Amino acid sequence: MRQLAMQSSLQQQGKMTNKAGDAIRCKAAVARKAGKPLVIEEVEVAPPQKMEARVKILFSSLCHTDVYFWEAKGQNPIFPRILGHEAGGIVESVGEGVTDLAPGDHVLPVFTGECKECAHCKSKESNLCDLLRINTDRGVMIHDQKSRFSINGKEIFHFLGTSTFSQYTVVHVGCLAKIDPLAPLDKVCVLSCGISTGFGATVNVAKPKKGSTVAVFGLGAVGLAAAEGARVSGASRIIGVDLNSNRSERAKKFGVTEFVNPKDYDKPVQEVISEMTKGGVDRSVECTGSTEAMTSAFECVHDGWGVAVLVEIPHKDAVFKTYKPRSERTLKSTFFGNYKPRSDIPSVVKKYMNKELKLEKFITRQFPFSEINKAFEYMKKGECIRCVIKMEE
Amino acid sequence: MRQLAMQSSLQQQGKMTNKAGDAIRCKAAVARKAGKPLVIEEVEVAPPQKMEARVKILFSSLCHTDVYFWEAKGQNPIFPRILGHEAGGIVESVGEGVTDLAPGDHVLPVFTGECKECAHCKSKESNLCDLLRINTDRGVMIHDQKSRFSINGKEIFHFLGTSTFSQYTVVHVGCLAKIDPLAPLDKVCVLSCGISTGFGATVNVAKPKKGSTVAVFGLGAVGLAAAEGARVSGASRIIGVDLNSNRSERAKKFGVTEFVNPKDYDKPVQEVISEMTKGGVDRSVECTGSTEAMTSAFECVHDGWGVAVLVEIPHKDAVFKTYKPRSERTLKSTFFGNYKPRSDIPSVVKKYMNKELKLEKFITRQFPFSEINKAFEYMKKGECIRCVIKMEE
Repeated sequence: MRQLAMQSSLQQQGKMTNKAGDAIRCKAAVARKAGKPLVIEEVEVAPPQKMEARVKILFSSLCHTDVYFWEAKGQNPIFPRILGHEAGGIVESVGEGVTDLAPGDHVLPVFTGECKECAHCKSKESNLCDLLRINTDRGVMIHDQKSRFSINGKEIFHFLGTSTFSQYTVVHVGCLAKIDPLAPLDKVCVLSCGISTGFGATVNVAKPKKGSTVAVFGLGAVGLAAAEGARVSGASRIIGVDLNSNRSERAKKFGVTEFVNPKDYDKPVQEVISEMTKGGVDRSVECTGSTEAMTSAFECVHDGWGVAVLVEIPHKDAVFKTYKPRSERTLKSTFFGNYKPRSDIPSVVKKYMNKELKLEKFITRQFPFSEINKAFEYMKKGECIRCVIKMEE
Repeated sequence: MRQLAMQSSLQQQGKMTNKAGDAIRCKAAVARKAGKPLVIEEVEVAPPQKMEARVKILFSSLCHTDVYFWEAKGQNPIFPRILGHEAGGIVESVGEGVTDLAPGDHVLPVFTGECKECAHCKSKESNLCDLLRINTDRGVMIHDQKSRFSINGKEIFHFLGTSTFSQYTVVHVGCLAKIDPLAPLDKVCVLSCGISTGFGATVNVAKPKKGSTVAVFGLGAVGLAAAEGARVSGASRIIGVDLNSNRSERAKKFGVTEFVNPKDYDKPVQEVISEMTKGGVDRSVECTGSTEAMTSAFECVHDGWGVAVLVEIPHKDAVFKTYKPRSERTLKSTFFGNYKPRSDIPSVVKKYMNKELKLEKFITRQFPFSEINKAFEYMKKGECIRCVIKMEE
């Protein structure tokens, strides 16, 4: 019996190796030094190991978190590294033990995962998977603590388990959402992170009722998606708060009905909002991660029933402080819009396919892969919501 | 038509005046100076005015808030004043416009009210009535900004709109819960404040599921009631936290299964609880009002689904601070257990009548009115949960 089992195991391993194939050579944008332009280089992408899939990335979009870790201010600098975590691709091969995915499947890689086994995955309320929860300090794969990327035999580190600024990448299957193959990857790629984070913060966590008032702090991609969530929920007033008044106009497209720049007032913005709304908004969604904005977002909701939602910005040292932990306000924090990557993201893609959720308005620019550094420049200047990078060009 | 209407209005006024009768002379315990023994004196209690009722108080129990305002540390000292806000009594007469109450009705006066007209009263979620919300600085009635108590023509101030340390008191009808006349007032009087506050914090706000884990911070009357709420909800583990280990034993009667004294550890109590429960409790209820305990209560709940409830202690300058406003924890604050005094308290009395909620174990002593100062002494020493004062003796 033991011999048979061993034989079968060897066969299986052999089969998996065949299925996964050999290393693939392709182009990747390598971040070699903090803040220095990415360098497009030829990398070797090893075959997927146990519970991994190798994915051909077709489109990748740029998120602030990429810029933040590229600049490496305030965290452990891990270089050389392949950044990128918002993307759409197609499974090329799968490793041992993978049963949910097969070559050809369309997937969105996600920076956090869902093992489906732990207490969090089994809870209806949490998406903070014990095994695959975001880890910004890990540059290797969980299975063997090694990287699948190399150049001339030298290891290049992973980023958030996704590293989508490569034409091929290897991802743990728990971090891959299998989506409708008809969904256009150049659009739905933005659901891998920011848009789902903001939209989910509103629809899954703040849950504004029809006709209610909502304040959104920070009108970048996440905040605009939060506003979109409020619009879709039927909010009657959506107050956008941002320190940059240039963002006021574009926010209208996402349902923002009023704009407040805290710099225009000599009193705290929570007081301004409270006066605008006879005592406070019904819901607020904080998308900046700033300590001050978190307090304002909490204190600007109505007493008795107000709910403030703090979107967890993974790269911030968050401190929350309030002198008003009373009057029946609720504070919630949300990570990735409370979506479970594998179980829930396919349904968000469906919302796009059904035209319930518009994604086109978030995508303000497209670049060929060869011009990826331009996307970084635009993002740094705040001149785009989402830049989508076409990985084949 | 106008004449008729005026006549009818005059008649009604006359009727109300008759109904309310003249001033009543009775005994009251007057707080004349901060921290000095109350003096039992004969007071004149004026008839109830518009939307008020005069109530014969049969039993009054002592709460920490009485002691706090008697000591007048840290707030506006308002003297001479008649304290007391947990009580049971019978309506003696009603003023103009009162239709919900009649002489003979059994009532619990409550330190906060329910006008049934404002946005809060109309909301299912809030009990923070705009008109009658707790006001610790007001020593007079809302209707005419005057006191109904006097001694030799000199005004004695009200406390929390209740002043139940008087054999008769005048209360706004919005602050009177009409209850089952069969309910024993010497027991249900404790539902006027502390017990409902703690019990409601758990059952209405924290809402622990059957089998879940709950931590309760502070094992005074409010905390024990919160623990009782967890026990009734079917919690599998109830961890009581208190700086006084003498409170450990008595807490068992209220369902506390484990006791933690933060002084016994050289690490923050949230870490201790987290280790005891593999990552944190499902729910916590904070009943001390201390800044440190609020932070611990928030940080000791499990990430992903934990809910921390801060019981609003009206007499504290609350500051809430956490370095962990993330990981999908929820913070809620609750005032008076989220009960609406008139709409909900009768049903809590019913729970007692149905034996779903035990009140006897909260009542550790009884005193005749003449010995009211002894109750203050016991409360200050922490040697009682609730002392009930029989107002007729």
